Amino acid sequence: MARISNPLFPGAPPVPDRGELPELDRSDPEGAIAEAVKRYSNWGRWGADDVLGTLNFLDDAKRREGAALVRRGVSFSLAQSFDMNGPQKGWRRRTNPVHTLLDTGLDAERGQGFPHGLGGADDVVFMPLQASTQWDGLGHIFDHGRAWNGRRAGDVVTSEGDLVTGIETAAAAIAGRGVLLDVGRAFGTGGELPDGFAITAEHLRATAEAQGSPVGRGDLVCVRTGRLARARREGWGDYAGGPAPGLSFTTAGWLHDSEIAGIATDTWGFEVRPNEFDDAFQPLHQVAIPHLGLFIGEMWDLDALADDCAADGVHDFWLTAAPLPVTGAVGAPVNPLAVK
Amino acid sequence: MARISNPLFPGAPPVPDRGELPELDRSDPEGAIAEAVKRYSNWGRWGADDVLGTLNFLDDAKRREGAALVRRGVSFSLAQSFDMNGPQKGWRRRTNPVHTLLDTGLDAERGQGFPHGLGGADDVVFMPLQASTQWDGLGHIFDHGRAWNGRRAGDVVTSEGDLVTGIETAAAAIAGRGVLLDVGRAFGTGGELPDGFAITAEHLRATAEAQGSPVGRGDLVCVRTGRLARARREGWGDYAGGPAPGLSFTTAGWLHDSEIAGIATDTWGFEVRPNEFDDAFQPLHQVAIPHLGLFIGEMWDLDALADDCAADGVHDFWLTAAPLPVTGAVGAPVNPLAVK
Amino acid sequence: MARISNPLFPGAPPVPDRGELPELDRSDPEGAIAEAVKRYSNWGRWGADDVLGTLNFLDDAKRREGAALVRRGVSFSLAQSFDMNGPQKGWRRRTNPVHTLLDTGLDAERGQGFPHGLGGADDVVFMPLQASTQWDGLGHIFDHGRAWNGRRAGDVVTSEGDLVTGIETAAAAIAGRGVLLDVGRAFGTGGELPDGFAITAEHLRATAEAQGSPVGRGDLVCVRTGRLARARREGWGDYAGGPAPGLSFTTAGWLHDSEIAGIATDTWGFEVRPNEFDDAFQPLHQVAIPHLGLFIGEMWDLDALADDCAADGVHDFWLTAAPLPVTGAVGAPVNPLAVK
Amino acid sequence: MARISNPLFPGAPPVPDRGELPELDRSDPEGAIAEAVKRYSNWGRWGADDVLGTLNFLDDAKRREGAALVRRGVSFSLAQSFDMNGPQKGWRRRTNPVHTLLDTGLDAERGQGFPHGLGGADDVVFMPLQASTQWDGLGHIFDHGRAWNGRRAGDVVTSEGDLVTGIETAAAAIAGRGVLLDVGRAFGTGGELPDGFAITAEHLRATAEAQGSPVGRGDLVCVRTGRLARARREGWGDYAGGPAPGLSFTTAGWLHDSEIAGIATDTWGFEVRPNEFDDAFQPLHQVAIPHLGLFIGEMWDLDALADDCAADGVHDFWLTAAPLPVTGAVGAPVNPLAVK
Repeated sequence: MARISNPLFPGAPPVPDRGELPELDRSDPEGAIAEAVKRYSNWGRWGADDVLGTLNFLDDAKRREGAALVRRGVSFSLAQSFDMNGPQKGWRRRTNPVHTLLDTGLDAERGQGFPHGLGGADDVVFMPLQASTQWDGLGHIFDHGRAWNGRRAGDVVTSEGDLVTGIETAAAAIAGRGVLLDVGRAFGTGGELPDGFAITAEHLRATAEAQGSPVGRGDLVCVRTGRLARARREGWGDYAGGPAPGLSFTTAGWLHDSEIAGIATDTWGFEVRPNEFDDAFQPLHQVAIPHLGLFIGEMWDLDALADDCAADGVHDFWLTAAPLPVTGAVGAPVNPLAVK
Repeated sequence: MARISNPLFPGAPPVPDRGELPELDRSDPEGAIAEAVKRYSNWGRWGADDVLGTLNFLDDAKRREGAALVRRGVSFSLAQSFDMNGPQKGWRRRTNPVHTLLDTGLDAERGQGFPHGLGGADDVVFMPLQASTQWDGLGHIFDHGRAWNGRRAGDVVTSEGDLVTGIETAAAAIAGRGVLLDVGRAFGTGGELPDGFAITAEHLRATAEAQGSPVGRGDLVCVRTGRLARARREGWGDYAGGPAPGLSFTTAGWLHDSEIAGIATDTWGFEVRPNEFDDAFQPLHQVAIPHLGLFIGEMWDLDALADDCAADGVHDFWLTAAPLPVTGAVGAPVNPLAVK
Repeated sequence: MARISNPLFPGAPPVPDRGELPELDRSDPEGAIAEAVKRYSNWGRWGADDVLGTLNFLDDAKRREGAALVRRGVSFSLAQSFDMNGPQKGWRRRTNPVHTLLDTGLDAERGQGFPHGLGGADDVVFMPLQASTQWDGLGHIFDHGRAWNGRRAGDVVTSEGDLVTGIETAAAAIAGRGVLLDVGRAFGTGGELPDGFAITAEHLRATAEAQGSPVGRGDLVCVRTGRLARARREGWGDYAGGPAPGLSFTTAGWLHDSEIAGIATDTWGFEVRPNEFDDAFQPLHQVAIPHLGLFIGEMWDLDALADDCAADGVHDFWLTAAPLPVTGAVGAPVNPLAVK
Repeated sequence: MARISNPLFPGAPPVPDRGELPELDRSDPEGAIAEAVKRYSNWGRWGADDVLGTLNFLDDAKRREGAALVRRGVSFSLAQSFDMNGPQKGWRRRTNPVHTLLDTGLDAERGQGFPHGLGGADDVVFMPLQASTQWDGLGHIFDHGRAWNGRRAGDVVTSEGDLVTGIETAAAAIAGRGVLLDVGRAFGTGGELPDGFAITAEHLRATAEAQGSPVGRGDLVCVRTGRLARARREGWGDYAGGPAPGLSFTTAGWLHDSEIAGIATDTWGFEVRPNEFDDAFQPLHQVAIPHLGLFIGEMWDLDALADDCAADGVHDFWLTAAPLPVTGAVGAPVNPLAVK
């Protein structure tokens, strides 16, 4: 297989050229997935024991490069809120976060039994780990019973959690160069793509080029579709699980060849919905997570950052997005910070 | 009141000189607290509507300074794990985090009803927000029924959460220059201070000086006592709530005058335990949170970072410690990242 | 005040005749509530320390009477299911019950580390205590800051729970004579009352008389409206909190004078919705719970029992409805059993 | 196989005589279990679709018999409390119930936005279903990957819950004749058996005979050991999972031949602990649940009932113990009521 230099990022090491997928047969998701797996699998690339997948691309040099992007010192949280006003509607027992208090200021005023006038409030949360802004862990999705790097799904994730690739393995890794690809602004109306808009590799490349922000090995890519902006304006509706713009299945090659470390969107499900096959459920996940070992972020809030990037024309930044390291978690809430 | 330049950090703007507290009367915590409040209160300093307290000290310039500290690109997670193996024993309904699965790899192997061979795992957590590595929010502690900036405790934190200073207000702020003060290494045996060791301002200053790492306005200070290292070796025991080294009540002046943005320790409760009064419960909290508006981190894991700092002699770094923005939370779990 | 014998139940002791409320002024719920309180309050009736309210009417004799109603031995559960398919939609953080597994049969097949071939499954639930079939406790509702028997609301229910009338105080009491009043069958179409149908004391009396099932002191009354049957057929819709048939505010006198021990309906909210005032929220609760000390059950499933009663013409039965005694709970889930 | 009449309960139908197990070989739990299974399995006894197991013995006639035992009308709750003061210590993620408030009386005093002076309190619970007084469901325990009636464990209990024998299938059934066997009073000191005391069939028979309370088909048996009384006096200690008196493995035959519908104890784990084999974990469960289809109750509070029975010499009563019907639960909390 030939290795070519990364057209998007001239400074990056050469990456394998796997070519693009042939045109999709809408009636055959299984065939398309198999073809993508055949072309783009990273199994074994970092050894049999690997638990980090594409985070292997994110090295110390990339972190130095990311930190050097802090020019003004302005900071953006890319997290949605974590509360009952979220988009979840109970699908597969995913509720919104339920936050309750163990002690309140009202209790403190009334007296809590502490000495010298001390009062306290304390609280607790019950939440699906993918209720709001999150990273999918490598144990989140399986292909025909196989998890990342070829392991049996049931050897990886039992009722005790992900025993191998639990999100805690990525606790320290996710800090580096972030790049916003504002596809909503580049190709949408009023900055927003319509539901069902399938973002292709061409859209990603063209957006990066138009912005002047090349993407390459080890980068953390944030793809803004505008879907969250619409939900903010019109209400959640079917934000969770319903129609949305998102990545086309055909980006599997780009996701592989660009050697990015992770990618996040402002949508519920990362890939375009309805999916591009007649009967399918998140087919790109099925390639990207267990075969590429790719870290996927969902429900990120990219709007304030995007406004700033549009204003100053700078679309890359220092991004830290350290997942809450719940041991054995297959996904994790995160408060990503972008600093420019 | 005279204003003097910060002796710890010559480059910082002059800070008010409030002097040190007189010697503590062990029998009179209420008097000592009142005196400290009189000297060090920041109420009104940033306006009547302020919700950020000492995070006001952490500005864009400080973030630029922090980012410039990334020299090698090596990253450390300062989070303890979030699981049932934690230190909590049920005090005031604080359990360890309970993580359960909604779907597992075993289910995926058996068949979950998804098309084209897709399988998935998903999970949920129930946890006190201060079960593991955390920030105390400004609504966590009250003094005689008053919260940060003079508000009534019950006007701030009701059963609906902290309506004013909920942790989400700090979602984007906590990224800047981190400084490790390894008091355990400087004054302990085998790098560990004994239980009941009260860390004074002198200890903090001497550690900073010995390390060559000045502390000043807007910094995020990490004080390592070695208590967690001991728990890791000997078991949790009474880590949660029991005896521990920690900050002396007398550091109230240093906490104020140094104009730090936040401070975290590797202990359960930040301040020395048993507390320095005959009948007291966390008296320094009672000054620091509602009166200084200080952000306090607890149960941080500073050990790996400290080993690295001891090895290379560099004790300051980029620190991102973005709390999980649970709306209205009075405390929040966090996975702090230190990058050197 | 005259005392007259109970017209509904000749064998019952005479009850005070408080008369009926004057016609409601839709614009003045506060006035109507005050008038009802003046007429029907039970404060002090069972002493200053009372925590049982109308359960005081349910004595050993009533239990003997109830047990004697077991003629065939057939048993009915009056509980709805407790799961994610319930009616809750997140109002005031009330979700449906989230049930997750700690261990499953799939884990057991794979091996759990137990000796001699043992395998196990185990589980956990997170649920609002009033998510499904439930009793309201006496600490659930307050009138102008006052709880049952005149106590201050904040002296009774703090963040630690109901310190006085927690549901555990009723753990052993609720077993006795149950009477189904199938108002849906008596006055509805196809056994179902329409939304907004206000059930008056006349409806209750007429139903009891038509059924030949008098109601009196110490009875546990189950009022079937048919609302749940409709939800079962048409979907939940606004079952939780929306329009529904239910008791009229004007039944306050009947609830008082009949000296029943408790009353339950097959609706979300017991009383008619929309409520009978222009701007109101559950005004009958405000009289019934804090002033009558009445135990109110909600979201009971009375349909199978009602079919049986309609078939054999017997509308009274043994009823055990022991609440799950969560210490300090202001409401509690229950699986009521009716045995005929 | 010969069928003989039940020596414990002359009125009961004849039961199969399977004889007693040979003496236990402490080193061979697997062999002992296999032998017990061979002798006592009820697989297929009630058809291939059965989900009720021994609850099939509890019929309408038995309920009539049970109700007829109500002579005085006095009622006893057999539930322990459900709160943080319980015995759980986190084993396999079993915490004590965590009860938190969504609204309190303090909030009501301060104002909650409801009209006409209404105030409310509301609450939520997080709890392992076997945290306190409970029934084990038929999906709780497996033998070599097999569940009740021979089904594959993984076909019965997945991450979605028990799809076949979920506790809701028993929602209406458990009401009948209860019999207290106060083995603690009969064979203990001060009414309490010591830890490790293995209760045999002989102990059960002798207790029943001494009390004059025969046990037979369809009965719900409550075995009091005194272990809870000790915990109440001395603290929980290792109540959850530690040494305790309990049923001997050799009672498997008695459990089978007596044709009881269910059995409950005042201990954490029903059977004697340490178990009677060198390396074992709850071997009697492994026979009783998946092979007999027996309903086992644990952590019941039998002390007040036992005092009453000792006082009046009547040890049988009307028992309703309807589990909270959490859909798919493998165990369920219950507030059992005994009425005499």
